[in-house]
Amino acid sequence: MRRRPVDIEDEPRVTMTAIAREAGVSVPTVSRVFNGRFDVSPRTRERVEELLRRHGYRRRAARPRESSGLIDLVFNDLDSPWAVEIIRGVESVAHPACVGTVVSAIHRRSDAARQWMENLQARTTDGVILVASDLERPLQAELRRLDVAAVVVDPVGAPVLDAPTIGTTNWAGGLSATEHLLGLGHRRIGFVAGTRRLLSSRARLDGYRAALEAAGIEPEEDLIRQGDFYHESGFEEGGVLLDMADRPTAIFAASDQMAFGVYEAARQRGLRVPDDVSVVGFDDLPQARWSSPPLTTVRQQLVQMGMLAARTVLRLAHGEEIESPRVELATELVIRHSSAPPTR
Amino acid sequence: MRRRPVDIEDEPRVTMTAIAREAGVSVPTVSRVFNGRFDVSPRTRERVEELLRRHGYRRRAARPRESSGLIDLVFNDLDSPWAVEIIRGVESVAHPACVGTVVSAIHRRSDAARQWMENLQARTTDGVILVASDLERPLQAELRRLDVAAVVVDPVGAPVLDAPTIGTTNWAGGLSATEHLLGLGHRRIGFVAGTRRLLSSRARLDGYRAALEAAGIEPEEDLIRQGDFYHESGFEEGGVLLDMADRPTAIFAASDQMAFGVYEAARQRGLRVPDDVSVVGFDDLPQARWSSPPLTTVRQQLVQMGMLAARTVLRLAHGEEIESPRVELATELVIRHSSAPPTR
Repeated sequence: MRRRPVDIEDEPRVTMTAIAREAGVSVPTVSRVFNGRFDVSPRTRERVEELLRRHGYRRRAARPRESSGLIDLVFNDLDSPWAVEIIRGVESVAHPACVGTVVSAIHRRSDAARQWMENLQARTTDGVILVASDLERPLQAELRRLDVAAVVVDPVGAPVLDAPTIGTTNWAGGLSATEHLLGLGHRRIGFVAGTRRLLSSRARLDGYRAALEAAGIEPEEDLIRQGDFYHESGFEEGGVLLDMADRPTAIFAASDQMAFGVYEAARQRGLRVPDDVSVVGFDDLPQARWSSPPLTTVRQQLVQMGMLAARTVLRLAHGEEIESPRVELATELVIRHSSAPPTR
Repeated sequence: MRRRPVDIEDEPRVTMTAIAREAGVSVPTVSRVFNGRFDVSPRTRERVEELLRRHGYRRRAARPRESSGLIDLVFNDLDSPWAVEIIRGVESVAHPACVGTVVSAIHRRSDAARQWMENLQARTTDGVILVASDLERPLQAELRRLDVAAVVVDPVGAPVLDAPTIGTTNWAGGLSATEHLLGLGHRRIGFVAGTRRLLSSRARLDGYRAALEAAGIEPEEDLIRQGDFYHESGFEEGGVLLDMADRPTAIFAASDQMAFGVYEAARQRGLRVPDDVSVVGFDDLPQARWSSPPLTTVRQQLVQMGMLAARTVLRLAHGEEIESPRVELATELVIRHSSAPPTR
């Protein structure tokens, strides 16, 4: 069922919409194929790729257009100490490239996000970096209409805008932290999980379970507590673990902030870290070095994530192709003084 | 020696340069008078004010000019955890005002600052907020030529650009922290000072001395150590104090980061906070709440400083006058669990 191809000599450019029409698929599907994603059936992929080739489709951004000299970096909130690490990475790439970094917080509120979108439309931008943002569908559609390059850092769940994503090897990080504690001789290892709906939380938990199972230990559901990445939940759930009759000899918290909460729960119970309980975190915020004792933790390369996000969005803005639509930067276990062999 | 005044009916606007020429003073002097600063002799002030009135001088920014929808927020470095607090404050005012916040770091390096200036010239801005920045003189001159509204947050020393400044009551903060420790019964109170060349460091030290003297205690030079606001110096200088034969029963560190360093110096010596030594910080970073024990500290209103800076620079950009060229937001002592009566 071939239709006559659009004559690209008459029309200087073929649009994604035209290709979608010709292929009998949706525009997002064409976009997914164009971006090299794998969630498209091989048959559809083949048909769309053939049309893209035939029409010599190029991203619209490839047309020379005036640069605004700005990229937008969008957080849900600026209340997390790791926000400044991401900002630092993005700025360190944008600044020498003569590009300003516009920082915004949308507070998971539609009015703030809507306001941001209006500001964006008024002044234009070369590209958008969304950090852990679950932008509502109508705003995603508007951003797509603006045809602005976009990159998602630390994706939280469903794909946004078919944009490339930059994450962290959360599963491998959860695995290595737990393996470290097992290697020290711990067998009863508590876990304080991060926010339930986030994929990153799930991946860290799965890594914890995988390490235990590989060591022949059945994960005990009692030892797994639900936190939300913030300090208070580490304090409370860590307290629950430390109050158990047969309390764990080590606690792995899925964020540094929760690990600091566990520190305080231990202190209030007269327990010393690591003598009475080992604690391991996840993030390696600067304050992990400054905590007392300095925290053993899984290092996320937050600055490098910001740098890569900036490089990627600037390349997209210049109409370049990127090699991979999905990158995870490797975590690294940083051993400091909060973990030691069990004394019981 | 009166010269004939410039006829402002022929020329729609008189410039600051013309007024300076007429008054026989420099342009910065006219600017200082215009901005209500006090470092001008009364006679000069009177003469300049008279000319300003006579010519109906208005700030050039008062002319309607197209808004860029952007303000620039410039740090030396984005490595301090309080940077994100300032960003949060600025963003929370700029965002609803339809203004984007461009965040830059100039790393105290002239090439980075020069690059920033070039980016600025390429894209324009409505105003600049300099945080603790000692912008080099040539760059100050360029910024002045661009006629961009500017505000300085946490001024470090010499005035920059005759711009309004927003600071903290550092002296009163140093006083209140020391009074708190005196009130608990401490008599030997160590002090770890911040970076020497900064006025804020000096003001905190003077507040410490003033409180001791008011209590009839002669400040001992041995108990005053030179730090640089960063963690490592708190660890080292705190260690020196704790190793003294007659060690202080309390240590006041001029930043939270240095206070955390003192925590670790105490821990490594088997000393408990506050049982063996009380510790008080300065800043009230979010992690002061999350430290173990939670830190007693002098709260700087960092978010509010950012908010006020944004409001001020936007008002200046709209050609409004501001009430005061120099504002200090009040510090507040936040008592948590790192300070207690001495046990020796």
